[in-house]
Amino acid sequence: MMDRSIPDATVARLPVYFRALVDLDRDGTATASSQELARRSGVNASKVRKDLSYLGSFGTRGVGYDVQYLLFEMSRRLGLATERPVVIAGAGNLGRALAKYRGFADRGFPVVALVDVDEAKVGGHVGGIEVHALGDLVALVRRHVGCIGVLAVPADVATAVAERFVAAGVRSLLNFAPAIVDVPPGVTVRPVDLALELQILSFYAQRHDLSAAAG
Amino acid sequence: MMDRSIPDATVARLPVYFRALVDLDRDGTATASSQELARRSGVNASKVRKDLSYLGSFGTRGVGYDVQYLLFEMSRRLGLATERPVVIAGAGNLGRALAKYRGFADRGFPVVALVDVDEAKVGGHVGGIEVHALGDLVALVRRHVGCIGVLAVPADVATAVAERFVAAGVRSLLNFAPAIVDVPPGVTVRPVDLALELQILSFYAQRHDLSAAAG
Repeated sequence: MMDRSIPDATVARLPVYFRALVDLDRDGTATASSQELARRSGVNASKVRKDLSYLGSFGTRGVGYDVQYLLFEMSRRLGLATERPVVIAGAGNLGRALAKYRGFADRGFPVVALVDVDEAKVGGHVGGIEVHALGDLVALVRRHVGCIGVLAVPADVATAVAERFVAAGVRSLLNFAPAIVDVPPGVTVRPVDLALELQILSFYAQRHDLSAAAG
Repeated sequence: MMDRSIPDATVARLPVYFRALVDLDRDGTATASSQELARRSGVNASKVRKDLSYLGSFGTRGVGYDVQYLLFEMSRRLGLATERPVVIAGAGNLGRALAKYRGFADRGFPVVALVDVDEAKVGGHVGGIEVHALGDLVALVRRHVGCIGVLAVPADVATAVAERFVAAGVRSLLNFAPAIVDVPPGVTVRPVDLALELQILSFYAQRHDLSAAAG
């Protein structure tokens, strides 16, 4: 089966299932029902079954899914069998925190370098990781083949820095800047806007306040 | 119109439109077409029109949407007219970075306190914000009414800390821990799993590598 046929929404849920399966495997669980995977993933069971069918895995009625097989298949599809290095642009508060964040390396995404335009920061280290000049990007990307670029830069320079990454050969960008970044076809950008998440929470909080006041 | 009728997927896009509208307003743009909003939001134009119709805003054919009106309406719906304080649990690398991250306060979400179980950290400051004991949570939530709780704690304690927040009266949680957190009805949790985003990028990067190798 071509991966091309997996819908984006399903792709976005695969790592959630993967995390649930890692936990199940750690607990020594050999098979899991779609209900169990649903509960651990915060997704309904019929969606779990549909999503997993894209991986060619349909489970066995009354038995469930083979945890080890699904882990293997998902790890292969998500390209988690090998480490994928991460280069962070921006050595400000956010970039520095991301460089120190152990959750990346723990899951196969070691941060290998930071880049920054500020010459005062270049040559310094954050959590043992060196800060390079933005001009070193081409050399860094050549050294760390297949790396993911992280944009931890101000919104007004996000597109320019993304262009530097793309010109250096990076095909995958995680964008923390609160700006839409346009990239050419074949390049994937995942936006992460932390304040935006707070605004969504604010919507629900206010709705709750209003209905409590009305009740 | 009751906010209750707005689908969750639309709610999640409102802050994206809001950001686009803020930019348009800053540029002195009085009206914007759905195409323009679509381009700036990374969403297709028909989805923009459908989403905005939930706000009772249908635009004017050939003229577009009134930027100021939409900004006002969205700000009201998202509860952005007043600041909403943020309390961060976990004064590790991530919690410290979030406390220093200016993007929160800039958009009306000032971080007012950190809490941590580590007594060595309690009483210290991160970017001018005091670290309190976890036991102070009830008093903090009483002082900062309607606050949002941020879970920047290890996965294995995420649910326990979430329960402390909920018991203290917090109704909105942003969860950075790579764990599903169960909460009672009426409490909203938004998960942010940074490594998960990298795994999604890894899927697309690998697909790109494979199709390039096949091509």
